[in-house]
Formats: sequence, structure tokens, C-alpha cells
Amino acid sequence: MAAMAAIAVAPTRHLLLTPNAAFRCLSLYRKPISNLPTSLPKPILFRSYPLPDFSPEIPRRRCFCTVISGETVETTKQDVVQDRRGQVGGRVGEFRKKLKVVDIKSGPSEGLDFLGQTLVVKGWVRTLRVQSSVTFVEINDGSCLSNMQCVMDSDVEGYDQVETGMITTGASIWVQGVVVKSQGSKQKVELKLTKIVLVGKSDPSFPIQKKRASREYLRTKAHLRPRTNTFGAVARVRNALAYATHKFFQENGFVWVSSPIITASDCEGAGEQFCVTTLIPNSQETADSPVDAIPLVNNRLIDWSQDFFGKPAFLTVSGQLNGEAYATALTDVYTFGPTFRAENSNTSRHLAEFWMIEPELAFADLNDNMACATAYLQYVVRYVLDNCKEDMDFFNTWIDKGIIDRLSDIADKDFAQITYTEAIDLLLGANKKFEFPVKWGCDLQSEHERYITEEAFAGCPVVIRDYPKDIKAFYMRQNEDGKTVAAMDVLVPRIGELIGGSQREERLEILEARLDDLRLNKDAYWWYLDLRRYGSVPHSGFGLGFERLVQFATGMDNIRDVIPFPRTPGSAEF
Amino acid sequence: MAAMAAIAVAPTRHLLLTPNAAFRCLSLYRKPISNLPTSLPKPILFRSYPLPDFSPEIPRRRCFCTVISGETVETTKQDVVQDRRGQVGGRVGEFRKKLKVVDIKSGPSEGLDFLGQTLVVKGWVRTLRVQSSVTFVEINDGSCLSNMQCVMDSDVEGYDQVETGMITTGASIWVQGVVVKSQGSKQKVELKLTKIVLVGKSDPSFPIQKKRASREYLRTKAHLRPRTNTFGAVARVRNALAYATHKFFQENGFVWVSSPIITASDCEGAGEQFCVTTLIPNSQETADSPVDAIPLVNNRLIDWSQDFFGKPAFLTVSGQLNGEAYATALTDVYTFGPTFRAENSNTSRHLAEFWMIEPELAFADLNDNMACATAYLQYVVRYVLDNCKEDMDFFNTWIDKGIIDRLSDIADKDFAQITYTEAIDLLLGANKKFEFPVKWGCDLQSEHERYITEEAFAGCPVVIRDYPKDIKAFYMRQNEDGKTVAAMDVLVPRIGELIGGSQREERLEILEARLDDLRLNKDAYWWYLDLRRYGSVPHSGFGLGFERLVQFATGMDNIRDVIPFPRTPGSAEF
Repeated sequence: MAAMAAIAVAPTRHLLLTPNAAFRCLSLYRKPISNLPTSLPKPILFRSYPLPDFSPEIPRRRCFCTVISGETVETTKQDVVQDRRGQVGGRVGEFRKKLKVVDIKSGPSEGLDFLGQTLVVKGWVRTLRVQSSVTFVEINDGSCLSNMQCVMDSDVEGYDQVETGMITTGASIWVQGVVVKSQGSKQKVELKLTKIVLVGKSDPSFPIQKKRASREYLRTKAHLRPRTNTFGAVARVRNALAYATHKFFQENGFVWVSSPIITASDCEGAGEQFCVTTLIPNSQETADSPVDAIPLVNNRLIDWSQDFFGKPAFLTVSGQLNGEAYATALTDVYTFGPTFRAENSNTSRHLAEFWMIEPELAFADLNDNMACATAYLQYVVRYVLDNCKEDMDFFNTWIDKGIIDRLSDIADKDFAQITYTEAIDLLLGANKKFEFPVKWGCDLQSEHERYITEEAFAGCPVVIRDYPKDIKAFYMRQNEDGKTVAAMDVLVPRIGELIGGSQREERLEILEARLDDLRLNKDAYWWYLDLRRYGSVPHSGFGLGFERLVQFATGMDNIRDVIPFPRTPGSAEF
Repeated sequence: MAAMAAIAVAPTRHLLLTPNAAFRCLSLYRKPISNLPTSLPKPILFRSYPLPDFSPEIPRRRCFCTVISGETVETTKQDVVQDRRGQVGGRVGEFRKKLKVVDIKSGPSEGLDFLGQTLVVKGWVRTLRVQSSVTFVEINDGSCLSNMQCVMDSDVEGYDQVETGMITTGASIWVQGVVVKSQGSKQKVELKLTKIVLVGKSDPSFPIQKKRASREYLRTKAHLRPRTNTFGAVARVRNALAYATHKFFQENGFVWVSSPIITASDCEGAGEQFCVTTLIPNSQETADSPVDAIPLVNNRLIDWSQDFFGKPAFLTVSGQLNGEAYATALTDVYTFGPTFRAENSNTSRHLAEFWMIEPELAFADLNDNMACATAYLQYVVRYVLDNCKEDMDFFNTWIDKGIIDRLSDIADKDFAQITYTEAIDLLLGANKKFEFPVKWGCDLQSEHERYITEEAFAGCPVVIRDYPKDIKAFYMRQNEDGKTVAAMDVLVPRIGELIGGSQREERLEILEARLDDLRLNKDAYWWYLDLRRYGSVPHSGFGLGFERLVQFATGMDNIRDVIPFPRTPGSAEF
């Protein structure tokens, strides 16, 4: 720490390094923004790398970089370790955060802090423009939307690889250069190269050239599409939403619980499920699967006792019931894991495999539930607006104009709440023709939901509560009117329902009666009923499909474009 | 904010509330520890609750609590919202962090900061001791290991529920009392009750009584076992490890990628897989599944074209190959999701369903990989030691004596690295008989791994690198000796291998030749080979089974006890 502080005030210097020497690239203290309070941000330590020696194309040469050598101070410790070990092996090196394009360009100075420094950047060529006197190459490393613009003369070391056409769009390269002010208007700084090295060439068949490829086409290249602006941005925003989800719940004392993926206990009855089995003999090589190898009873029925789990097992459709078991022990929990629907829906809103977030709160009624869902949604939206500015500007410009304003509204506005009955009245009184007719007792369609949030409430998110019990799941708590249950849906503009939840029925007798009414098998629910038998508590929770949230936050039309490798009917490639 | 500050200096007061009135319980600013720098921690806002009115057992009475009413200051805003909405509905209330036992007892003062305050606590009865003059009840809410000890006289409101035996172990209760110094030595403070309310009674059959239940028995009660000290502690440590995992990678610029769960692309060949299908007709109610309903071709072979995905599909065994696709676009990524093995292993170390963490680093060689794995492991272990002190003391005392020292060593000690060849020499030279004979080329067994880390390196974690290529996967990068690959395993005391990783083969021709050598179908790897065809980069990654990590951090013997609902041969209950 002392050594680093010293360097921070010392002038930048160049240090000679041998190949493979470990060294650290020093980041500057970022200058605080002048109109903010002054506490200095922590220094960020980066790890940088000398010339890689693994690629035959790369000559072993000395490289120059702005560095400090951190090894000397730790030599003593290493010696001790070596001695104790009796001369066998060595110490594992220290891990340092990599210097990435985002680190150079994302600060308030947009890179000007680095002026005059020699840096190494590694990434993939997005564009290469050879002009009469200079050549421009744009490198992207996926750490941010921005490329690092590099400029070079023909006398730069390694330029022959440009001249011979080895360095093309899609190739991976290693460059070293000095940070200079950019002449262009698109960026504040660029890298004036002293050296360029091809790491991996790109075959001319590279399918993601600069011309715009269609989304449909890119789905067939799901392994390469994250190298585009759009899918890189989706991946980063998706990541930010996931992390913000964990942060929100952790900061509020919730425990993450992994609900099971395979389950023999189909308690929800919510949609069709995938069967998970080892009974079907399958050879990967031939895909020939003789049916007569399936064990049978009575020559006709599949013998489930011989399956892996000794009975039919399925992929989960929801972790809620399991979440309830943990909430009634740890008070507040949440799940965040994959769930599945075997529905043959080829729409832009459905996936066979998607991620769900399902918080469950003990000692909480429907009001607490609505408050939690609202606070959660506002938190993650605010987090993305604050932490993914560049990507959100991209979506706002190219994908969905106005999305930033819409999200800012969500983050700042109060959410309204109305009852289902009030919603029906509102729809019946609307001066508008709906495709699906409205009457008390009907399920609300997307057109109804969007009318309410977009028109009746002028773009404000609306929570609808107290739905008719006949259109909701068995576990929802019955209200005193005998007709409705303590359910709630959060509606947002453009999407309609984003979150659905309820207070759960905690009264054993009423829950059992409801199971009987619906002719559900009470034995299958023995453990779920146990939660009401032993120290039952009022509790509530909600669920949201993570991909719907990513769609909502990015404005992407098709849900297949917001998950890395979408699974849909007929498609489980990659 | 002004209102809260005012309350902070005002004396505690009692406020009359009607049932269901919203109110907020104010937490004090925690006193800073005297020998630390002084910046005041942020105030924590808690939400507390009036008497719940949903349970028929609970009379609607006025309740008293230390509160401030926060609604008045926001009335204006609400009025505006109401006006705009045309008199329909209201505003969703504000979400406040709940006051939990951990908030009262976990501070440096262990609750003394709250002396004299009237608080409400909700949770489950762990023990109830009726003595001649006073009654003690211990409440646990799962927020921490500690119970809140409550003491009451027989004239406390609601005491009749104790006398009539309604309040028993396992029941959920709501209590209100004043924080007083505890006479006992086990805690600094206790709650002197003014009121006790039964929320949900516990049937006398409650299977988790105070007498110690066996782990095997508790596995049959997986829905109730989190209400025990051990499983509550496991859940909290598991949660801390998961969050620390996200924190580590996020802070180092990694992007979380969700690798697919269902995949038709079995690229690993690593172990047996579960088949995922909708071809098998199954009725939940009867479990009668006639085999003749399976569509066939040639009257004999299963017609996969009619399955959901149009071909055989499986549960993933690893997200690595998908992770590589994203690493070669975004530089550094990690997966954290469930993976599956259909192996019939009934051991204390195997699950059919478990969670894996698989980071993948572009522009990184094996040294970088080892450094990252080491830093990751040290980070999460340090996080748990710092953030789960009470739970770790519990494990250290009751589950695995010495685990805190062992973990502290991991967090602080340098990890050693040796080559596989050096490891073999070391084992051959060891003055010890091994069950499995050692010679160059053999796979290391647990006994070998543990000898190396526990004895040869005296408890220091050891990374073994450069394994024979014939015992490692096809995708690992071949070293120049032609015999070994750039693989690495991280060994830790008591567990043996905890992490396995490698540098990946980035050279297209060598990778293709390797696939040919192993007679693997190159066509199936088309997209994986594409990553080497277009801008290939040196890259590395590792994987670790999350449940193994939880075992390592808690000392729990059986892996079935560190995941909420374990899946093993014959068992997919809950």
C-alpha cells in the first residue's frame, strides 16, 4: 500500500520487462467530480500482461508499459514458503483486475486521465479503416459498448499484419500505444499505437460483419452474437439486473435459497412440465433409441420404479412452495434460478427455460408484498440507469426510443394500487373497444392491463389486487368477502404484467378445504400443509420472470434475444 | 428525514395505534465502536407491524409500540396521486427493512444499544421454560443463530395462552416487550414482555423437538429442518458464499452468464445425463404411463422428431463451453447455475443436482487462472469468516472443531503450486502406503490429494498443474512437452480437490486433431470450433461445485445437508 501510494505521486515512468515477468499496471486515483463531495474513491488495481508467448505469430520481444513491479516486497514471504515446501513448486501469483476498455473510458474524464500513458489493450477488431496516411482500428473487449479507437502509421511494429490482410474484422489483437487526445468527435481519447500483434485471425467467413445482421439470423449464431453491440449491451444489462437483484434482497436481510430444479412433487399444476428420466436409452452418436428397452409393468405401462428417482420426475415450474418452507424458518428468503414450461408457445414472450426470482416474506401481508415488489422493481431499474448509462443510451437510441424516460418514471413515481373490482369498473367505463370482453370474473388480458397502466394511469405502474379466487391458484389467501383472494399483479407500460404475487393461505382448514374444492390430492401436499400445521404465519411473496424484466429494461422485442441460449419448441441448440 | 432525526433525540414514547395502522419502528443510530474511526453508520430503517388481524386466534386489540408515524409527511404527494387517478385506488406503501433478531443482537453492543426500548419480535418458539415465578421463551426468526430470550410474569397480557398450553415449541408468536439487561450469561439483553400473542400453534406431532434428531431423519423433513440450529446456520453460510461469489466476480469486472440447463448439444461427454422429454405420456394422478403412446419410427425406435425440441435433449453437466462463447466476446464471465449428473452414486459427496460456478477468462493463461481461483477462494472464505461469525462459531464448536483456524489459513496463506510430475515424485517418495498405487499417468485419488495438501504441505492449499493429457478432457490446452495439458486442480485439506480448471486449447488445428484422436464427432462441436475460427484467444477457466464449497466452509459431512432439497438416486421429494 505504501509502495502504491508512492507511485501515485511519482511521475509515469517506463520500465523494461522480460517476457512473462509479472507486473502490475497502476490505475490513477480517479479525479473526483468537482461538484461532488470529495472523499477519494479507492484506487483500483489492475493486472496487465506482457506479450503473450503462446501464439506462434507473436515474437518474443521486450515490451514497455507503465507499471510498477510488485514482486520485490513479497520475496521474503515467498522464500519462507519455498523453504517450508522443501524446494518443490512455487507460490501461486497474485490476481489483479484486468485493465479493460471500460476502465479507460468510463470515468468522468472519459479517458483524459490516462493521457500520455502507454497502455496495452486486448480485444476483437470491430472495424479497420486504412486511409492514405493513417490506419484506424476499433477494438472492443466487451467490457463496455465503446470501442478503443487505435490509430497507427505504417511504421508501427507489426503493421505488416495489417498490410497482408491478416488483421480483419473479428480477429483478436493485442495492441500497445500511448493515450492521446482524439481528433474525432466520437471519443475523447484514442490510442496511438506503437505496436500491434495479431492474436487470433478471423476466417473470412466470419458471419458477423459490419453490415447489420437480422435478429433471426443472429439467433442461429448465438455463440457469436455477444460480439455485436446489441447483444453485448443486453448481456451487460442482464448482468446488472441480476446483481442488483441480489444486492436488493441481501441488503434487506433476505436469504437466497436454491429451490430444486428436478422435482417429483408437482404441487403447482401450473402448466405442462418436462419429464426428467434415465429410462429412455439414448445413444448420443446414433440417436437410435429402441423403445423396447424401456422397462415395463404389465407389458404396457412404464415401470417408474426403475427410473432414477424411483417415480416420475419433472422440471420445476416454480420454486415458490419450497421458498415458503424456508420463509417459515428464516423469515425472508428469495429464489433466483431456472424454471421451465413445456408449452408449445412460439411467441416473442415465451421460453421453455427461463429464470425466475421468487421472494417469500414471513409475517407479511399483501400490503407488505406490494411494497416489497415496488421497492425491488424501483431499485433494479435505478441500478441499471445508474450503472449502465452507455448501454441504456444505446437502447434508447437504437432499440426503443423513450425507454430511459419510461424507466426513470418507474424508478421515481409512486405505484398506484387498485382492486380488481375497481379495475373492471374502470375498463367497463373506458371509451374503448377491447378485443376480449370485460366482466367481473374474467382474467385480465394484456390489452386490459396495458390500458390501465398506459392510459387510465398515464404511464404510472399499477398494482391490481384482490382477484376473483376462481382465476387464481389454490394457495392464495381468501379474503373475507369469500369471492376474492389476496393476489396482486404489478402492471407496467408496454409489458403489462411484470410481477405476480399473493398473500398465501396460512389457515390449515381453509387451505385443505380449497384443495378439496379443486379436487387436488392432499397427500401430495403433505409437506406444504405441514407448514400450516406447525407454527403457521401470515406470509406473502411474488414471482417475476427475469427475462421479462430484461425485456422491460432494454426494450428488446423478442424474449429469445435477452437470454444467451434460448430454448423454445424445436430449439435446444448450443 | 427531519422527522426521524427529531425522534432520534426524543425520549421513547408509546403511541396508540388502531389495528392495521401503518407505522415504522425507528432504529437508533448504532454507537460507533470507540476505537474505530468515527464516520457514523447510516441509520437503518425498519418496518414493524401492528398486531396481525388475519388469525382468528388473535383478538383485535390496541397495541403499543415504539413508533413514529411516517404517513403525514407524505400526504400531499398522495393527494396529488389520488387526484390524478380520479379517486380510484391509492398509493403502494413504502417498503422498510424488517426489525429482526439479528438487528437487535448482532451489533458490537449485542443489544445493549436497545436498552429501555419497547420492541416487537416475531418468530418461532424454540424453547419454553415455565418456572415458579417467571417464564422464559426463546424465539428464533432465522435471521441469526441466536434466539431472542423473552421473560415474562404471569400477569403479562396473553399469558393465558402459555397456561393453556397453546404456546409450545414450534409455534409462531408475536411478542412485545422492553429490552432489559439479561441476568443470564448467554446473552447481554433479553426482552421483558408486556404482551404475547400466538400467531400459529404447533401441532404436538411437531417432529423437531428439542431432543437432537439425526441428520438422516431430518432429511425426510427437509421442509422443516431449516428451523434447527444446524440447518439454519448452513442456509445462512450458503447464502453468504453465494453472495460473496457474485461480489467477487462483479467487483473484478466479470459478467454473469446464464448457461442453458436443457441442451441438445452434449459436448462434454462428462458422465451420464438426464433425458428431458415430453414424449412420455404421464398423468400425475395415476402415474400410469402407457408405453404405446410414445411415437415411434419403424415400429421400434423412439421418434425424436416429435419431441419438444425435435431431438433428444438433456440436462446440462457443465456450462463451460457456453461460457467460453461469452468469454470470447465479453473477456471475463462466470456462470452460477444448476448442473446435473445421472450417476447412481449414493455417497456423501455426490448429488444428482448441484450448483456450479464456472468462470471463464479471455486473454488469460494457466497462471492467471490459478491466480483467479486462489483469489476467489480466499475472498469467499474471508467473507464468511467476517460476516457469519456466530454461525462459524457454531460449526467450530458443534460440527467440525478447528474449522475456523483451517479457513483462516486458507484466507491468509499463500497457495503453493506444483506440477503433476512433481506431485507424483512427492507421492512416490512418501513414507506412506496408499490404497491406490501411484505412477505417472494415473489419476490422483482423494488419499493422494489429501496427503499432498495435509501432510506434504502441512495444511497449505496446493495447486497441481500440468496433468497427463490422457486423463483430462479434450478441450484442455496441450503443453509443449506433448504429454501434458495446462490443467490445474486446487486441493484443500479435508476435501481434496475443490476446484478444477484449465487453459483451453485455442489453436483450431490442434483442437480438431484432438477430437479426431478421441473419435469425437467434430460436427457436434461446430460452434465450439467457431470460437477458434474467428478471433481465437488464449483463455482459461475453472469450475467448482458450490455444495462442495459449502461443505468445506461449514464442515458438514454429507453433501445432502448443504443444499435445501437434495436430489439423489431414488429421492426427488419436496
